[in-house]
Amino acid sequence: MKLTNVPDKNELFAARERIRGLIHETAVLTSSLLNAITGSNIYLKCENFQKAGAFKSRGATHALSLLSKDELAMGVATHSSGNHAQALARAAKLLNTKAYIVMPDNAPAVKIAAVRQYGGIISFCKPNLADREATLARVISETSAIEVHPYNNYDVIAGQATASMEMLGQMPNPDYILCPVGGGGLLSGTLLSMHYFSPHTKVIACEPEGANDAWQSFHTGKLVPSTQPDTIADGLLTSLGSLTYPIIKEHVTDILTVTDVQIIEAMYFVFERLKIVIEPSSAVAVAVAMQRPDFLQNKNVGIIISGGNVDLRSLPWITVL
Amino acid sequence: MKLTNVPDKNELFAARERIRGLIHETAVLTSSLLNAITGSNIYLKCENFQKAGAFKSRGATHALSLLSKDELAMGVATHSSGNHAQALARAAKLLNTKAYIVMPDNAPAVKIAAVRQYGGIISFCKPNLADREATLARVISETSAIEVHPYNNYDVIAGQATASMEMLGQMPNPDYILCPVGGGGLLSGTLLSMHYFSPHTKVIACEPEGANDAWQSFHTGKLVPSTQPDTIADGLLTSLGSLTYPIIKEHVTDILTVTDVQIIEAMYFVFERLKIVIEPSSAVAVAVAMQRPDFLQNKNVGIIISGGNVDLRSLPWITVL
Repeated sequence: MKLTNVPDKNELFAARERIRGLIHETAVLTSSLLNAITGSNIYLKCENFQKAGAFKSRGATHALSLLSKDELAMGVATHSSGNHAQALARAAKLLNTKAYIVMPDNAPAVKIAAVRQYGGIISFCKPNLADREATLARVISETSAIEVHPYNNYDVIAGQATASMEMLGQMPNPDYILCPVGGGGLLSGTLLSMHYFSPHTKVIACEPEGANDAWQSFHTGKLVPSTQPDTIADGLLTSLGSLTYPIIKEHVTDILTVTDVQIIEAMYFVFERLKIVIEPSSAVAVAVAMQRPDFLQNKNVGIIISGGNVDLRSLPWITVL
Repeated sequence: MKLTNVPDKNELFAARERIRGLIHETAVLTSSLLNAITGSNIYLKCENFQKAGAFKSRGATHALSLLSKDELAMGVATHSSGNHAQALARAAKLLNTKAYIVMPDNAPAVKIAAVRQYGGIISFCKPNLADREATLARVISETSAIEVHPYNNYDVIAGQATASMEMLGQMPNPDYILCPVGGGGLLSGTLLSMHYFSPHTKVIACEPEGANDAWQSFHTGKLVPSTQPDTIADGLLTSLGSLTYPIIKEHVTDILTVTDVQIIEAMYFVFERLKIVIEPSSAVAVAVAMQRPDFLQNKNVGIIISGGNVDLRSLPWITVL
């Protein structure tokens, strides 16, 4: 594994400058109750308050900001049913280009509506990876749009890194950062920014037990794909990528997993006591803190709340807790 | 109506100093989408992030901070099934005294649990005003506890005034402040603080159509009690008080009402797009802004988000919208 091409310190600085004004510098919240429960000093980086409701706006906006006028004129494309789709559609609208979004035909109506609201042009496919990729290839061949992968893209990773860069100015120097991991874009960006700007900070990846492919990859030393993931954390179903896995392997301190019940309990706690709306994927990192791992006691701990896009008509605790 | 005994400017300054460190200085949030929808520059004062989940902690904490050691030793008492009960119990715990809370025996289990969590001592009564008052009188005669009324108390009003005092340092000078009205404690405090510290700011009270006793009082020029209120905004059911009504009559610019459907739509919008948890009573003021009254266009508008204590297992839009 070579890490020679990963974004360097200057590229992260440049990423932050490029997207300044195009995304929110999100708030960091604290809770004395959460501190009491966890035994740690917790700082929540609220990317649920980010444009389009998730950190994904950072990476998508940054990737598009690097395209030439000619490239932008062709539009951008991706397949996604989640936050990256909305983020890419929003970024494209902001930069006066088109976003072609391939979505499975069983995607929730609310997610389809959100992409359309930002002007995204949707092509539906069958809900399997083969048809997603085939449909995306067809769309790209028809439009010459530039593909922007949700995480396996260094420009996207550099954009996601800006969330933890901001955190360093918003909290006491972190001993730990807890970060959810799905495809590894946010985690890779966080690892790089801590490596460059706060090397003593340990980054702990947080993953659902029901989609523990990163945990398996970490412990076997090779990239284990996500197969038949089964978890409420719908943003963390994907496999690590060829670009994210090496960064994670090199820099992550540990990967901890939590059960879906622990995730839902943490999510309910955050709604009920912190009064903010978060999605299950964000609750994964809170759940890890709430398990009170020994090494977090009395430490300054940053948690990246990755997003707040959740179906408010079917919140999971109503049926589960 | 005489206003000679209302808290003056110096008493509001003193109130703010007395409760500093005992309550949160809550954040002010903005939303470009809400600004686009309303045509105004909106600043949301997030008292849903306040201790015990609502602005009520300000008034309760302030009232208790003025009691003598001997008075504090007897404990404090109130009848309430809502946010004042939790706020008083928390403030009493903070000041090492007891809170005797009279609650109707049909109060939701979650509210009973919240009061108990802060160490409140609950006496149950029948769910009508006569038995609430009789039970409170009995508790006070047995304990010699000091009654702390939820709103008809100048020390409480001075405490509630600190929310809008803080706002003046957190947003451009407000042209308008939108404030929900139930018993009128928060509204009276807001009116006094704007009168003293930002006299050009107009304060608009916001009320549910189904509990429009303040609107009726404003338009008839006499205190009309709340009889058989019927609204989702469970914090705004009470009548104005003998101390709050004169302040409102003297200083409020207007009182506007919204329907329960408008309230629930606004509440859903705030959860869905601003990613914060608010209670229906807070959504009343947001709903007024979303009706785009002409006079709010292009103005700097502060909205006091009064609290975030809502039953997350039965959110109203699931059945209503």
